[in-house]
Amino acid sequence: MGVTAPLSRGFFFSLLNYKTEKYVIAENRRIGILFRLYQLAVLGYIIGWVFVVKKGYQEREEAIQTSVITKLKGVTLANSSETGLYLWSAEDYVIPPNGEQVFFVVTNYIETPNQRLGFCAESFKVPNGRCQSDDDCIEGETVISGHGIKTGLCYNSTGTCEIQAWCPVEYSKTPTEALLSNAENFTIYIKNFIRFPKFEFSKSNVLETSDRNYLKSCSYDKEHHPYCPIFRIGDLISWTGHDFQDMAVKGGSVGILIEWNCDLDKDSSRCNPQYSFTRLDMNMNNSITSGYNFRCIFKKNSIRQLTSPTAGKFNIIPTIIAIGSGVALLGAVSNLLKY
Amino acid sequence: MGVTAPLSRGFFFSLLNYKTEKYVIAENRRIGILFRLYQLAVLGYIIGWVFVVKKGYQEREEAIQTSVITKLKGVTLANSSETGLYLWSAEDYVIPPNGEQVFFVVTNYIETPNQRLGFCAESFKVPNGRCQSDDDCIEGETVISGHGIKTGLCYNSTGTCEIQAWCPVEYSKTPTEALLSNAENFTIYIKNFIRFPKFEFSKSNVLETSDRNYLKSCSYDKEHHPYCPIFRIGDLISWTGHDFQDMAVKGGSVGILIEWNCDLDKDSSRCNPQYSFTRLDMNMNNSITSGYNFRCIFKKNSIRQLTSPTAGKFNIIPTIIAIGSGVALLGAVSNLLKY
Amino acid sequence: MGVTAPLSRGFFFSLLNYKTEKYVIAENRRIGILFRLYQLAVLGYIIGWVFVVKKGYQEREEAIQTSVITKLKGVTLANSSETGLYLWSAEDYVIPPNGEQVFFVVTNYIETPNQRLGFCAESFKVPNGRCQSDDDCIEGETVISGHGIKTGLCYNSTGTCEIQAWCPVEYSKTPTEALLSNAENFTIYIKNFIRFPKFEFSKSNVLETSDRNYLKSCSYDKEHHPYCPIFRIGDLISWTGHDFQDMAVKGGSVGILIEWNCDLDKDSSRCNPQYSFTRLDMNMNNSITSGYNFRCIFKKNSIRQLTSPTAGKFNIIPTIIAIGSGVALLGAVSNLLKY
Repeated sequence: MGVTAPLSRGFFFSLLNYKTEKYVIAENRRIGILFRLYQLAVLGYIIGWVFVVKKGYQEREEAIQTSVITKLKGVTLANSSETGLYLWSAEDYVIPPNGEQVFFVVTNYIETPNQRLGFCAESFKVPNGRCQSDDDCIEGETVISGHGIKTGLCYNSTGTCEIQAWCPVEYSKTPTEALLSNAENFTIYIKNFIRFPKFEFSKSNVLETSDRNYLKSCSYDKEHHPYCPIFRIGDLISWTGHDFQDMAVKGGSVGILIEWNCDLDKDSSRCNPQYSFTRLDMNMNNSITSGYNFRCIFKKNSIRQLTSPTAGKFNIIPTIIAIGSGVALLGAVSNLLKY
Repeated sequence: MGVTAPLSRGFFFSLLNYKTEKYVIAENRRIGILFRLYQLAVLGYIIGWVFVVKKGYQEREEAIQTSVITKLKGVTLANSSETGLYLWSAEDYVIPPNGEQVFFVVTNYIETPNQRLGFCAESFKVPNGRCQSDDDCIEGETVISGHGIKTGLCYNSTGTCEIQAWCPVEYSKTPTEALLSNAENFTIYIKNFIRFPKFEFSKSNVLETSDRNYLKSCSYDKEHHPYCPIFRIGDLISWTGHDFQDMAVKGGSVGILIEWNCDLDKDSSRCNPQYSFTRLDMNMNNSITSGYNFRCIFKKNSIRQLTSPTAGKFNIIPTIIAIGSGVALLGAVSNLLKY
Repeated sequence: MGVTAPLSRGFFFSLLNYKTEKYVIAENRRIGILFRLYQLAVLGYIIGWVFVVKKGYQEREEAIQTSVITKLKGVTLANSSETGLYLWSAEDYVIPPNGEQVFFVVTNYIETPNQRLGFCAESFKVPNGRCQSDDDCIEGETVISGHGIKTGLCYNSTGTCEIQAWCPVEYSKTPTEALLSNAENFTIYIKNFIRFPKFEFSKSNVLETSDRNYLKSCSYDKEHHPYCPIFRIGDLISWTGHDFQDMAVKGGSVGILIEWNCDLDKDSSRCNPQYSFTRLDMNMNNSITSGYNFRCIFKKNSIRQLTSPTAGKFNIIPTIIAIGSGVALLGAVSNLLKY
């Protein structure tokens, strides 16, 4: 029971001695029970939480290789006072039309037909364009957040400066009705490929079925068709807790989350996507601050036609968490031994 | 060797005592050798893995400031039966044309010329448009995933409902040959800037050379031109393990990964990008589920021309891992002391 | 003080014994003081760094649900020799026009009017198009990185091959002046929504104010208007440390970072965005490698007009770090007990 190794035996041999701590065993049952309970709690935490819930023994990989392709289908007839009857098909209402991960579906629009380069009154909605006399309209100055360049005249009739602009200036009444209200029947087909380079695993959210007609006629439903990649826009909006017809008037922004939480220790057929849907343009108090719109030009001649479509923005976000087999057991085991 | 400090000396002085554990030295060589081997393994793991391989003493930063600009070059003549000879240049076949990180190169297309708003039979490919009698075609109903609105008539000749649509309805034969097969000679120039704000370091993948002609005529090659940022499309597809001519017919999706794994402790000239190329639209069993296409309108009048280009989607993904000097030594050292 | 529990009392009772290590108290003040100082340092580190600075007791979430919408305003008159006077409004100079997170603002452009499919000389700037005799121009070969297909003739006047192309070939003088130099007065309105699904918290960078005119006339300023979401382009470029007029000639790439570092334990009114602005296309030695431009077609007939706009690329990157209440105290406490 010597505390130091005898020097005569040499340093080398002393290296081969095994040093262990000296323990005191207190035969007190109360302390003993408490101590064992503490150990059980620690063991339970490690086994229950780290191993069973968090799968701490497995390796995770967040794959960056994903590919999203979208395709919209559906047509609707819109009758506007300016341009008459027009059949909107996906090529018209999807912006951009090339199958992107983020896209807009036009649900409403305001047209300003036959604009020409000329002189007219600025809109009263632009604070910088308002005037009381010609002195408020400095010639050559650009109207801040406005539509043209001031000519130096003030129109008493409108209370705004005359500007050199594409005339008539955009007529922006607040819309009350959606011109493409049928857009709720449009369908979005989402094809999402994922690839885990480390595990050499790849999968798509499109059901691998031999029945080609299934994928042409199914419609996603959490209960009945969880593996159908086709979503009806009206359903999709209702799953976010909102009403399509309300949103169609002023526009909005919707996120479609595709979550892949794959345990690659199990069969690949059990690695399936989970969809979730949220509205992305809302404040805490559930008030929608404003709609969503942008401006487009239809003809790029001296006569042009400006369209302000109100659109729903759809943002498809694939998130992937893979769990493969790997060993992180060492750390956990050494923790076990310590207690 | 009292277990508690004598109370008479006061609490303060007892604080200054040094408490150490009492050890037992077992002079057993077998246990001793095992114990030392275990210690060596732990030391080897810490030094070899944590320090040498993982560089645990360094700080890492994943820069979010990257910028990707692409430019395509190359022309090809295509002769289609509908529109005759047309010279496709980058402005025509790259969608969108403005140098994005994700873009499409048109390799094939189907044209549906001179569509007018009118009445015609739905395509037989749309299940919801098929009919046996007029009762199957409810007037005013939209054909699900179809091209128009049912008028109430059933065409016996085609077995489909009459619809109000852009007529003729898109003619979608499965393509067998790529109209832009020369696209394999097109070149992609990729300019990728990276910036590590924390380390005040920035670099581009474009070789800093005084020879301006090098960057106008070189072509990337892993062996001979690893720092040339110009990629021939045909080569690029072949590096993914596929054939360009096969992919050109039906389209596909390709990921170009630019990996920057920089050790900023070393000279900046050794911080260079690594390119890798993968096909992103394949299932596990290497079967390509389907091609890639979308629809575009060329004219937006009452007469319009629809084009369905088959395109290769290119997705340039910069991934950056920087390693700078920093200290995470403390944790490792305390681990060393414990054993 | 037996080292092992007496076997007669049974294994079960021995489980209830409390085992503690036997300590030696060395009454050496020097070692004692050093030891206590070490303990204080460890405690100071844990409390000061882990708790106060890093807020280790809180849970973090990096929300993936963000939404960015942009809108540009401002007009300018440009007078080009080719096409005369044209009033550029946001619909013309913003590419793409639909309010994206990454967009381009045209600041300069070169026009190549009235291109027709025909035969003309390749540009001398393309190395592969240069020739000394007809033998250098193989018929049917595409000019690498060029504009057309060689016909087999060599033009002595230009020293380049004749090509079948859109003629005249693009005229690319290096620009010295920005045609849209007034673009510095354009304003960018950025609306950024963030959402933390775990904490059920969402916020926008747009000030919640009842004064509608404030958001129509304010301009962001770090000191005076930190919550105004409208940015003057000229100011924005100057905050990156560059000059707008220099950048407008050749183009450039700018990143706008919106950082949300929210402590959700505090009031939501204290969760506000921080903006930062950097130029993304610069090398370490502050040299700008090249400008930014791309090519567009204005008319898609047999006569077409090519425009090469020089554009500023704006990239809005929202980064979000949220801190909510949670408990990571256990680990820290057990560390405390060990020392």
